[in-house]
Amino acid sequence: MNTDSYAPLSPPRRVLLGPGPSPVPASVLAALGKPTLGHLDPHFLEIMNDVRSMLRAVMRTENEPTFPMSGTGSAGMETCIVNLVEPSDKVLVGVNGVFGQRLCEVARRAGAEVHSVEREWGRALDPEALLKKKKDGPFKLLCVVHAETSTGAVSDLGACKRVAEELGALLLVDCVTSLGGIPIDLDELGIDAAYSGTQKCLSCPPGLAPVSFSPRAISVVHERRTPVASWYLDLTLISNYWGEERAYHHTAPIQMIYGLHEALRLVLEEGLDNRHARHARNAGALWSGLEAIGLELAVPLQERLHPLTAVLVPDGIDEAQARRFLLEHHDLEIGGGLGPLKGKVWRIGLMGEGSRAENVELVLRGLEEALAAQGR
Amino acid sequence: MNTDSYAPLSPPRRVLLGPGPSPVPASVLAALGKPTLGHLDPHFLEIMNDVRSMLRAVMRTENEPTFPMSGTGSAGMETCIVNLVEPSDKVLVGVNGVFGQRLCEVARRAGAEVHSVEREWGRALDPEALLKKKKDGPFKLLCVVHAETSTGAVSDLGACKRVAEELGALLLVDCVTSLGGIPIDLDELGIDAAYSGTQKCLSCPPGLAPVSFSPRAISVVHERRTPVASWYLDLTLISNYWGEERAYHHTAPIQMIYGLHEALRLVLEEGLDNRHARHARNAGALWSGLEAIGLELAVPLQERLHPLTAVLVPDGIDEAQARRFLLEHHDLEIGGGLGPLKGKVWRIGLMGEGSRAENVELVLRGLEEALAAQGR
Repeated sequence: MNTDSYAPLSPPRRVLLGPGPSPVPASVLAALGKPTLGHLDPHFLEIMNDVRSMLRAVMRTENEPTFPMSGTGSAGMETCIVNLVEPSDKVLVGVNGVFGQRLCEVARRAGAEVHSVEREWGRALDPEALLKKKKDGPFKLLCVVHAETSTGAVSDLGACKRVAEELGALLLVDCVTSLGGIPIDLDELGIDAAYSGTQKCLSCPPGLAPVSFSPRAISVVHERRTPVASWYLDLTLISNYWGEERAYHHTAPIQMIYGLHEALRLVLEEGLDNRHARHARNAGALWSGLEAIGLELAVPLQERLHPLTAVLVPDGIDEAQARRFLLEHHDLEIGGGLGPLKGKVWRIGLMGEGSRAENVELVLRGLEEALAAQGR
Repeated sequence: MNTDSYAPLSPPRRVLLGPGPSPVPASVLAALGKPTLGHLDPHFLEIMNDVRSMLRAVMRTENEPTFPMSGTGSAGMETCIVNLVEPSDKVLVGVNGVFGQRLCEVARRAGAEVHSVEREWGRALDPEALLKKKKDGPFKLLCVVHAETSTGAVSDLGACKRVAEELGALLLVDCVTSLGGIPIDLDELGIDAAYSGTQKCLSCPPGLAPVSFSPRAISVVHERRTPVASWYLDLTLISNYWGEERAYHHTAPIQMIYGLHEALRLVLEEGLDNRHARHARNAGALWSGLEAIGLELAVPLQERLHPLTAVLVPDGIDEAQARRFLLEHHDLEIGGGLGPLKGKVWRIGLMGEGSRAENVELVLRGLEEALAAQGR
């Protein structure tokens, strides 16, 4: 075996202003490399307790089952679906982007009868349209994406909750790109199940999926007639490890939990309200700047998400070439479009640590140069 | 929100000689903290390519789909099962410990008709007994655990392969605790699907599950009549990200892949044969030492696993108290028993970086002291 070809890693330093992962604070990176503990070490159990209570504070909930699943955001989505859905259950999904579509797909694989209400990509979900589906119910679950990462549109969770109540359904919310970046208060909103990812506005690297379940959701889990199809994501088994029993389920991803511990600590140190205000301020500056250089935004102002902005690619511009330009000349990553928006938008994330005035400047200057390089 | 209570992390340095996680080399911990890249960054795609080819070398396979799943070892188990099993498929599982039991449970949840052949915990699987089940077939899959982490028994994969051939079944192997510690050659043995974990003999922290599928297994996946129940673990979708298409599936756990890159690099730098010899040598020293201080081993010599040794707890000794003693006085972690062996054995891991002569000394001296502290 010739091992000469495998040099030690030396990843370049990028400024991550795409749809995630977001820039990671130095102390979070440092936490990842702290000495490994066993997953049942008393010291590690204390770290788990801290992570749980910090996560509750960040999600603004008293929900007992609130912890990070050992997978990325999509594992969080799957956790919520597979624990709450049994074969033939009716599920209603609001779809205005990739992640709404993914919710449909995951629910279908879990055996659900999936009904969806589509909304144009780049717009918020339409609560009226969701409510009109009541005739096809009863629905066990209403699933909505708070902040669509594929388009940068934010939906009104208060209105979604009222729809869920009208439907008599549990409300399941994707808060992958909202948590830590814009206000979301699980208990006040009456959200029954929520999942997030670590690599967006929490500014922890990808690898964990915070989830939280209301007492009402948990009683639905307890009343299941069929076993949860996934052993790895079985909420009851995992609660026995994160709860008082400390029963071994799987070996927790120790270092990632160190990273999340530090990331949550920084979020609470800054304060959620301050953090939300910072995301709003820098997003506003970005939007003005983009319009000032003649670019058009994909989402109407009132439905626009602070942490992620979709920008229409001007006619005649090769969007992938512009992204390569930014990466090569400025070590700056922004995202392209997905699905129907592929080739048509750039996605600029100002998430967590990335939401800074100097990054707004950097991406505006970079985009101007990238457009100029293509003769515009 | 009072955040004073959340101090930055300061985990103690433990010597991890339990059933995993194992001690992590400093350069692997350092790799975890390298600058975060986007999951579609060209530089990260190169890192992924290196990880894949190093993993193929360590697993001794040419299998194209060979990569780490974004979860811990149990996610690897679930990946193998949910992609290969369809409802009502017959699956035969050899059970001689916790992980064989878990295979049954995961397969049952995937809808399989599960048949199992039990063997006393602490013994290797009995190929004759497995073969006798042929009358209950045809079986799609024969599942075996190479190295039972719950007991420290190793089974003969060559014999298992002959049984699988007789049954006309695919051979699925759990090599969580064997990979990197004792010889396992996927292609030479004709293994169709294998999963491992990073936190055992590879000495990378927990969080990823290397998997590999033979062309025969892949054609079974392609011929499925039903969708894979798990979207997160759907092999075809994930292969599109790890393969040439680079299609976005989920955001890869970047830092964990950095860690695995460095851990695999160290394995190949040492050389697999050297590494296996080192595990054998230190295990031999541990076994002699344990017997010299009057302790009895749980597994007969010919079926005993080098990376993990189960020791019978002498009568009158409180095994949990002894483990606490080691942790408190020597910052040394060893494991307790699981299932029927709970309270009856200690499990001592000499895995990866942990397999060192000084650790053999440390655990022997520590155990002597711990026994003396209980008046023996």
